[in-house]
Parts: sequence; C-alpha cells; structure tokens
Amino acid sequence: MALIVQKYGGTSVGNAERIENVARKVKATAEAGNQVVVVVSAMSGETNRLIDLAHQITKSPDLREYDVLVSTGEQVTIALLSMALNKLGCPARSYTGTQVHILTDSAYTKARILDIDEQAVRSDLEKGRVVVVAGFQGKDENGNITTLGRGGSDTTAVAMAAALKADECQIYTDVDGVYTTDPRVVPTARRLERITFEEMLEMASLGSKVLQIRSVEFAGKYNVPLRVLSSFEEGPGTLITYEEEKMEQPVISGIAFNRDEAKLTILGVPDQPGVAYKILGPIGDANIEVDMIIQNVAADATTDFTFTVNRGDFDKARAILQKVANELGAREVSGDHSIVKISLVGVGMRSHAGVASTMFGALAKENINIRMISTSEIKISVVVDEKYLELGVRALHTAFNLDQAPAA
Amino acid sequence: MALIVQKYGGTSVGNAERIENVARKVKATAEAGNQVVVVVSAMSGETNRLIDLAHQITKSPDLREYDVLVSTGEQVTIALLSMALNKLGCPARSYTGTQVHILTDSAYTKARILDIDEQAVRSDLEKGRVVVVAGFQGKDENGNITTLGRGGSDTTAVAMAAALKADECQIYTDVDGVYTTDPRVVPTARRLERITFEEMLEMASLGSKVLQIRSVEFAGKYNVPLRVLSSFEEGPGTLITYEEEKMEQPVISGIAFNRDEAKLTILGVPDQPGVAYKILGPIGDANIEVDMIIQNVAADATTDFTFTVNRGDFDKARAILQKVANELGAREVSGDHSIVKISLVGVGMRSHAGVASTMFGALAKENINIRMISTSEIKISVVVDEKYLELGVRALHTAFNLDQAPAA
Repeated sequence: MALIVQKYGGTSVGNAERIENVARKVKATAEAGNQVVVVVSAMSGETNRLIDLAHQITKSPDLREYDVLVSTGEQVTIALLSMALNKLGCPARSYTGTQVHILTDSAYTKARILDIDEQAVRSDLEKGRVVVVAGFQGKDENGNITTLGRGGSDTTAVAMAAALKADECQIYTDVDGVYTTDPRVVPTARRLERITFEEMLEMASLGSKVLQIRSVEFAGKYNVPLRVLSSFEEGPGTLITYEEEKMEQPVISGIAFNRDEAKLTILGVPDQPGVAYKILGPIGDANIEVDMIIQNVAADATTDFTFTVNRGDFDKARAILQKVANELGAREVSGDHSIVKISLVGVGMRSHAGVASTMFGALAKENINIRMISTSEIKISVVVDEKYLELGVRALHTAFNLDQAPAA
Repeated sequence: MALIVQKYGGTSVGNAERIENVARKVKATAEAGNQVVVVVSAMSGETNRLIDLAHQITKSPDLREYDVLVSTGEQVTIALLSMALNKLGCPARSYTGTQVHILTDSAYTKARILDIDEQAVRSDLEKGRVVVVAGFQGKDENGNITTLGRGGSDTTAVAMAAALKADECQIYTDVDGVYTTDPRVVPTARRLERITFEEMLEMASLGSKVLQIRSVEFAGKYNVPLRVLSSFEEGPGTLITYEEEKMEQPVISGIAFNRDEAKLTILGVPDQPGVAYKILGPIGDANIEVDMIIQNVAADATTDFTFTVNRGDFDKARAILQKVANELGAREVSGDHSIVKISLVGVGMRSHAGVASTMFGALAKENINIRMISTSEIKISVVVDEKYLELGVRALHTAFNLDQAPAA
C-alpha cells in the first residue's frame, strides 16, 4: 500500500462540477489500494474576491487579519471536496491548517512551515479515510492563522508528503507535465517523462510556471518524489526526482525563456574597488531584483556594467541608476526593455563539452545577435532582442534534438 | 470601566460600508472607556451562498463538513471588521470559535456551548484591544469545527458575556428595540424601555423575531443584562433583565401575534384513556410541532380534539389526522388555515385579576369571535379568524393603555 499526497489547484476545483471530478480521481486512487492525502487551493477567483473585500475597507489591511480572511478560501474547498467524496461513498475528513497543526513562523502572508504534527492524519488514514487538507495556510505557536503566500498550496502538499514520508507527491494542474519548452512557441515540444529537482528549479525560476519554486526546493531537500499531472486529462505526467546514476541523461532537458526582461547599462564608470556594490546597492534597497550581471573593464581603466531586471522595474531602476551614475562620475546610462532571456537547462551539461558552442552556432545560423551570456553548472542563458524569441527557441529545440524522444 | 459585549447581525455587516459603520460604533464605545468584545455574524447573503455551493454537490451534505463550510462566513466578517477597526486607530484582534476556545458538544449544525476559555480574550482586553469574535461557531473536544445553528451568533454573544461576567450584552439589529406590538400593525406601538426575560421569551416564541429564544434563555440563566439596539439609529433600545421587586410593573408589556397558524379538529372521537397520545403521537413523529391543544368531552362520551400547527404543516397534518380518525372511528376531521393567534404578555398579570375579562370584552366589543383560548402564568393567547388580526391587536393595544408610556 502506497501513501500518495495529491494537490489540486484553484482551476481544478473552480466549481462544483470540477470538485466532483477531483473527488472521482481521488476515489480511484484510494480504491487502487493507496492511502490518500489531498491538499487543495481556494476555488479560482475566490482569493481575489476576498482580497477585493479587504481593499474595499483599506488598501493596507492589517496582515494578521488579512490571513484570517484569505484562509477561508481553502476552508471552503476542503469542506466541499470532503462532501463530494463522502457522497461517492469514499469516507473523507477535512482539516484546516490549524486543525492539522501546520506550525509556521509568524510572518503573516508569507509564513514558512516549521513543523507538521502528522498524527491526526495518520490515524484517519489507518481508518481508511481520505484526508483533505487546506493548502496555503497554517498557524503560529500562539494559534494565530498564517498563510504561506500565493501558490503556497504546492508547499503544503510537499510538506505533508515529507512529514508523512509519502511515496509520491502528485501536483495536479492545468498542464499535463513539464515540457521541453513552451508548446505555444514550439509545437513539437515534448512532455518530459522525468526531470531532476535541479533542472526543475532552473526551469521554474526561468519562467516555466508549472510549480512554485519553494515547493520544488522543499521536495528536493526532503527527497519527496514530485509528479506533475493534468487534472483534466489522463496521463503519467512528469516525475521530478534526484538524478539516478544509471540513467542516461540527455544533454539538455529543456529550454526556458522569459519575456519579462529589461537590461540596463552604466558606461564609463571609473573602475575602483566596491563599484559593483555602489551600483547595485541602491537597486537592491529599492526592492528591485537583479538577475544577470556583467562587468567589462575597458582599456582606459573605466568599466561598463550591465544587468537585467524585471521589465516592470525598468523605469524605477533606470532613475536610480542615473542618480548613481552622476555620483560616480560615469559617462552615461543606457537601457533596453525589448529583450528576452533564453536558457538551456540540463544536468547532462556537466559531463558534456560543447553545449555552449552548439548553442551559439545555432543562434548565429539564424543571424540572432547575443547581447549577454550567463552560465551556471546546469544552465546557459543568453539575452537576445525580443523579436528573436520564437526563432531562437525553435532553432535551439531542433539543434539539441528535443523534438525527438531520447532513445530508451 | 465597564465590559460590554456587542453583537452585530448579518444585515449590520452586509457590506464594506456597513462594516466601517460598525467599526465607528465599536470605537466610540471603546473610547468612552469601556472594554469591548464584538461578536459578528456572516455578511447577509453569505451563509446562503455557501449553502448553495454545498447543494450544488449534494442535497444532504456530511454535517461535519457543512459546519467547516458555513463557519467561513463569520471568519470573513471578523477579519474585515478587525481591519476596519485597526484602520481607525482602534487596536483589534479577531478570533474564530476555535481560537477563542468556544467548546461545544459534537452536534454538528446545532451544537450547544459547553464552555468558553476567556483567558485569551481577557489578556487582549487588558492590553487595550477590542476583541472581535466569530459568532455561531465553536469546536468540540476533538477540535472539530461546529456551528450553533441559524441565529446562533446571539447565543455566542450572551455566552461570551456570561463567561466574561460582562456588564451588558448589546444585540444590535435592524430594529431599535422591543415594541409593545408590531408598529406596522399598530402605528402607536411604543418601544419598551425594559422587559423581563420571561416576557421576552413569550414575545419571541410568539413571533416577535427580535432575538433568538435560545440566547434569551441563556441570558436569563446566567443573569446577563441584554440590550436590543439598532445598528442604524442612535437610541437606548430595550433592556432585558430580571424583574425588579421595587419596579411598578405594567399589567401587560406587549401584544404578540402569529399569522402563521392553522387549526385542525377531530370530532366525535370515542373517549378513552390515551386518545390524546394516539392523536398527537403520529403528528409528532412526522416532526410537526403542535402549539395550542384543546379537548372537550361531549355528553355522548365522545370527545372533540382541536390543536394548532404551523400553517406550512397544515396539509401534511390533516392527512395524518384523517388516517388517525379512521383508525379511532372518529366522526370527522375539520381544519381551518385562515386563523391567527394574538397573545397578551406581561409579568404584571400574576398580581392582577381581570386581565382575561378585559381582553375578551375588548374583542367582543369589536364583534371578534374567539375560536380558542390558552393561558399561562404571564400570557393569554386567543385564536381568531385571520381577517380580525389588525382590528383585534389595535383594540387590545388601546384597551390596555399601551399607546401611552406608563407613569414613572
């Protein structure tokens, strides 16, 4: 008998009919001889409805009360799903974050899970019940209701799976798995049978929004096998696990990209120790996240410094940078908000030389000019003009043979 | 410094604007130097919305899950009201029934309060905070969420007041107090300054739906002074307390009536021991509540048996009675669903003779035929034809000088 944790997101439980559909899937899993814990999000639209109510009263609600408010969204779903399961003759019990003792710190709206007391859940499972747990929420040591922030239901599911030492944590979403790249850009993109935690982290942080990063980190840390599946279609989905020694790794697992990028350059900065800090300190102080950073030292002992930010932060970052440039006596500030980032991700890269040159060759063949390059152990990212995004991703998808399934 | 418990119902917190209005009233009470605990219901319409969601899944939802579902309604209100109070600079904290340890039995959807741990509340009050408590809900000894049934927020308020030994429990509603009778029927009806618990119980059960009966019983049992006030208008409302020895009691405090009545008679039943049980047993088994009961024994040793039921149960009750009549060999069954009940209520009745004769005289003067009479220690009820309701109530209101305020 396996112990499976399943998580269904807001779209999957968006109305009564879909909740009944989820109940049938859960029942089938239980009847196949598994113990099942289900973690659910608020019905789609519900969290926004609640936030709107709060905003009708104040634009800056008390955060403790904000969590009391929005946590009702998942509580509604656990009750409805448990009703649907009981109606199908599948005994089920719901638990709020408080009831299942998901202990968190007291950072309202973005709390972190510290501990889970899994005894109540185990006792129900042993009695043959399905346990339905409210995602996204917990309580602090004083019994105050907390929430984990948006998307936190994935983290709840993984944390439950870790606490229960579950055999698998299945995340049901509106896609049927993790793809080699976005099928809307590359029609021949393939669903991956499996991917490693590290690759998934790179794919997620690069804009493939299938799973919340925190939940993948959490799953990796506690070695919980994660599976991404579709709520609406049958299929094995994609399994996210640790790299297996014996497994023949494809060099590249997938291609991620991010349209939401902008680039800023400060030119002709007098080169001196601490200049990077002087430039990026004020940017960080303004809560602007910096992604790629490149610094070139010129022959005249001045330096050019380039970095990328989220496109929404471009104007704000540019204004700050202009101020910094004046203070440092830099020559000029330039910017470009029509750029995108394309990244190759693959653990196979570690043992294969030549990936970068194949990548640059494929882009050059299409006359795509590379504006920035950044590499890590399992990833190579390039910044190119926005207009080359689709062309670039398709060229790379073909160049690395991602159109075909790997030989068994 | 007084400790005041205030309760605001669904209409009073029906939207963001009204919640802000309630927040201003609460703040004013706190700034007048009182410690304040506020109990709130779900926003009007919200409980029905939740029940409708449940019914989309099943017509007979699991009751444990039903309580998990509907208890979210009050949780939304406590969060919004606490936000509104904090915004006004009035420190406030919300508590669910679980958080404030309102311990109940496990009778889902109609649980009874067993105990309240008031320590957390006291600690907040001592810190100068307003405490906002979700009405209508609690938890059982295993931590399962329970609800007290519709209208249970009044009971929560009274129970909190009893546990905290509050100086007064104020129930805010959409009327500004308890009236001598319904002002829509008698324009000269007066708001009562005070009324006893016993009188209020008779008024409430007779159809003056200002307060939930259970909460009045509870307040009487624990001697919690109750005050009914309007959420929307200023005014002292009506105070409900124990009868004071020194107080000069008016003979009659008010006139209640109930349009929702129907009468059934079984004629010519052979009189024998146990006949009342044989007639009313099957009615009770069908969950039909019987109100007034009259039995007359005729000269021929048969008996006529008359009782009243809620008008909605008339057809069902008549069918059952016809079956009983056949079994008992009764002569016939007759019924009338165009009747109403009018009741005089007053603790002064105990020490005053002649109330009944004044009542019957006033009705006779208007040619109103009395169909049934029933009396208790502080109440006289008559059943009359529906068409006489307004005329009868007005005649009695004048006959007992209820149009004028009593002399001080």
